[in-house]
Amino acid sequence: MTTPAPFLRYRQELEAALRSFLSRQEPPLLYRMVRYHLGWEDAQGRPATGGGGKGLRPVLCLLACEAVGGHWPAALPAAVALELVHNFSLVHDDIQDQDRERRHRPTVWAIWGQAQAINAGDALLAAAQLALAHLPEAGVPHERAVAAAQALATATLEMVEGQVLDLQFEGQPHISLQDYLDMVSRKTGALFDASLRLGAMVGCDRPDLWQALGRCGRLLGLAFQVRDDMLGVWGQEERTGKPATDIRRRKKGLPVVYALAQGGPAAQAVARAYATPAPGDREVAAVLRALEQAGARDYCLALAREKKAEALSLLAGLELAPGPRRELEELAEFLLEREF
Amino acid sequence: MTTPAPFLRYRQELEAALRSFLSRQEPPLLYRMVRYHLGWEDAQGRPATGGGGKGLRPVLCLLACEAVGGHWPAALPAAVALELVHNFSLVHDDIQDQDRERRHRPTVWAIWGQAQAINAGDALLAAAQLALAHLPEAGVPHERAVAAAQALATATLEMVEGQVLDLQFEGQPHISLQDYLDMVSRKTGALFDASLRLGAMVGCDRPDLWQALGRCGRLLGLAFQVRDDMLGVWGQEERTGKPATDIRRRKKGLPVVYALAQGGPAAQAVARAYATPAPGDREVAAVLRALEQAGARDYCLALAREKKAEALSLLAGLELAPGPRRELEELAEFLLEREF
Repeated sequence: MTTPAPFLRYRQELEAALRSFLSRQEPPLLYRMVRYHLGWEDAQGRPATGGGGKGLRPVLCLLACEAVGGHWPAALPAAVALELVHNFSLVHDDIQDQDRERRHRPTVWAIWGQAQAINAGDALLAAAQLALAHLPEAGVPHERAVAAAQALATATLEMVEGQVLDLQFEGQPHISLQDYLDMVSRKTGALFDASLRLGAMVGCDRPDLWQALGRCGRLLGLAFQVRDDMLGVWGQEERTGKPATDIRRRKKGLPVVYALAQGGPAAQAVARAYATPAPGDREVAAVLRALEQAGARDYCLALAREKKAEALSLLAGLELAPGPRRELEELAEFLLEREF
Repeated sequence: MTTPAPFLRYRQELEAALRSFLSRQEPPLLYRMVRYHLGWEDAQGRPATGGGGKGLRPVLCLLACEAVGGHWPAALPAAVALELVHNFSLVHDDIQDQDRERRHRPTVWAIWGQAQAINAGDALLAAAQLALAHLPEAGVPHERAVAAAQALATATLEMVEGQVLDLQFEGQPHISLQDYLDMVSRKTGALFDASLRLGAMVGCDRPDLWQALGRCGRLLGLAFQVRDDMLGVWGQEERTGKPATDIRRRKKGLPVVYALAQGGPAAQAVARAYATPAPGDREVAAVLRALEQAGARDYCLALAREKKAEALSLLAGLELAPGPRRELEELAEFLLEREF
C-alpha cells in the first residue's frame, strides 16, 4: 500500500514548522532528548532520519482544514501542536510501561533515565501549547485560536484520563468491552478528534462542521487503535518497528480483552498464560491459539471496519471540498490497511 | 509574621475557581490523586484541609491585575492556571527527586506509584491550559487571552528547562554560582514572572507594564527560592512541613553551592560529606560548620535582599494603583521573612 498523497504534500512545510517551533537550544540535554525522540538525531546528537513517526495527526489536521475550504498553511501551528502532544504522550507512556524500545531505537528513558525523560515529555507538552498560541500569526482570528487551545487542552486531558484507565486495566483480571472502548476513545480517540476538529476550526467558521469532523476523527481513532492492537499481536516486527510481543509483555489489547470477556476455555487459557510473570514461547503459542478459538481476530477486524464505515458515512453527509474529501476517505482506508 | 491581606481577600473566590476548573470526575483515580495533591482530600478521598499550598502565585497574579487598574475576578482563570502549573511541577519533581513526603503528607507517587503520578502531573498541566482558555468568558479580550497562553506556555517550558538543569547539577561536583542562578531563574523565576505578567495582561493593555511586572516577578522568584534553599538547611521542620534534611539528602541548594564554589577547607568538608551515600548526624554537623565557616548564610541572605531590593526599585518606577502597590511591597517583604 502506497503512502497517501497528503503525507507527501505537507511533509516539507510540516517538518520545517516543527523545527521552527522547537528552536530553543538550552539546556542542550533537554533539546537533545526532544530531537532524539522525534527521530531527528541519534543518541549522540548526530543528524538522523527515519526514527520519527508518521505524522498522522498533523496530516489529518491539515487535510481537514482543506476539506472545509481553508488554506492549509494557516493550520501548521495546530498541526505541530498535535504532533507534539502525541509525542509527549509517547515519551511518558514509555516510562510508565517500562518500554525500552520504540521504532527500533532505545526509548528516551532507557538512554537518559526516567527523571529526565519525564522532563522531555513535559517540555513537549508545553511546546505544543506554545506552538498553538502562534495561530493568529498564521492568520487565524484570535477568537478561534482560543477555541482551538480549549479543544487541544480538553483532548490532552482526555488522553491522560485514558492512560490512567489503561494502566489500571493492567492490574484487573476482567475488563468489559465497553470499558475498553471507553478507554480507547479517550486515549487515542480524543487526539484524533482534536486533529480533524482543529483543522476545521482554522479553515472555517462553522461550529457544526468542527463538531462533525471531530466526531469523525474520534471514530477513525478507534479504528486506528483497534488495528494497532491487532498489529501488536499479529503484526510483523520489521514493519511495525516494535516486536509483536504484546502477548509476551502481557498487554491487554482488544484481542486479549475480547477473548477474556468471552469466558470459556479460551479465556481460561489466556488468563493462565497472563498469570505467569514472563510468558515464554509455549504460553505465547497457547494465547495465540486461544485468540483464534475465540474469534478475536475476526471481531477486531469487524469492529475496526464498523468504526471506519461510521466515519465515512458521517463524512458523506458534510459539505466538503471534493478533492480533500476523497483524500480523507482514502486516509480512512489507509488506517485500516496499514502494516506499520 | 501575619499573612498578608491579599491572601485573605482572594481566598474564597480563588478556591471556588480552582474547584470549578477541576470539576471533571472520571476516571475517579485521576481526580482523586489531583484533589489529594491539592490538599482537598486525604488518601481515602475524605474531605481534608490544610494540605494545600500557600497559593502564592495566584495571589501575585490577582494583585498585579489590581495594581495595573484591572478588576481582579477577571484574572481568576489565569490565577488558577498558575496554581495548576505550579502543582504539576511539584508532582513530577517529587517523582524525580524520589521525595516521599511533602507538606507533612505522603506524596502522590508514594501512594499511587510513579506511573499514575506521572499522569496526575500531566493532567494538572493540561487542566492549567484549559483554565486559561476561559479568560475571554471572564471578559478578557481574545487577543490578550492568546498572549497570556503564550506567556504561560513559555514559562512552563522554562520551568522544565530549569528542572533539567537542577537534576543535572545533582551529579556534578562543581556548579558555578552563575549557573545556579540561571537554573533558579528558570525553575522558580519563570513562573513568578508569569504570575505578575498574566495579572497585568488581564488588567491593562500596556505591554510595557506587562514586561516590567514580569521582570519584577522574576526577581521576587529568585529571592523566594534563595530563602527556600535557606529554609531547606536551617528551617524548622514544624514550620516548613519538610524536614530540614536538604543536607542529609545531599541536595545542592544555594548554601552548599556557595560553599563548594569558595574552595578551601569548607568546600572540602562539604564535598567529603556529600561523597558519602547517606550522610549521618556527624557528616551533617560537619557540613553545617563548613557552611558557617564559608559565610554561606550571610551570602544567601544578602543575595535574597538584593533581589528583593531590585524588585522594589523596579516597582517604584511604575504607574500603579497605590493600595495594591503597597500590598505588592508587603508581599515582597513577606517572601523573605516567611518561615514556611
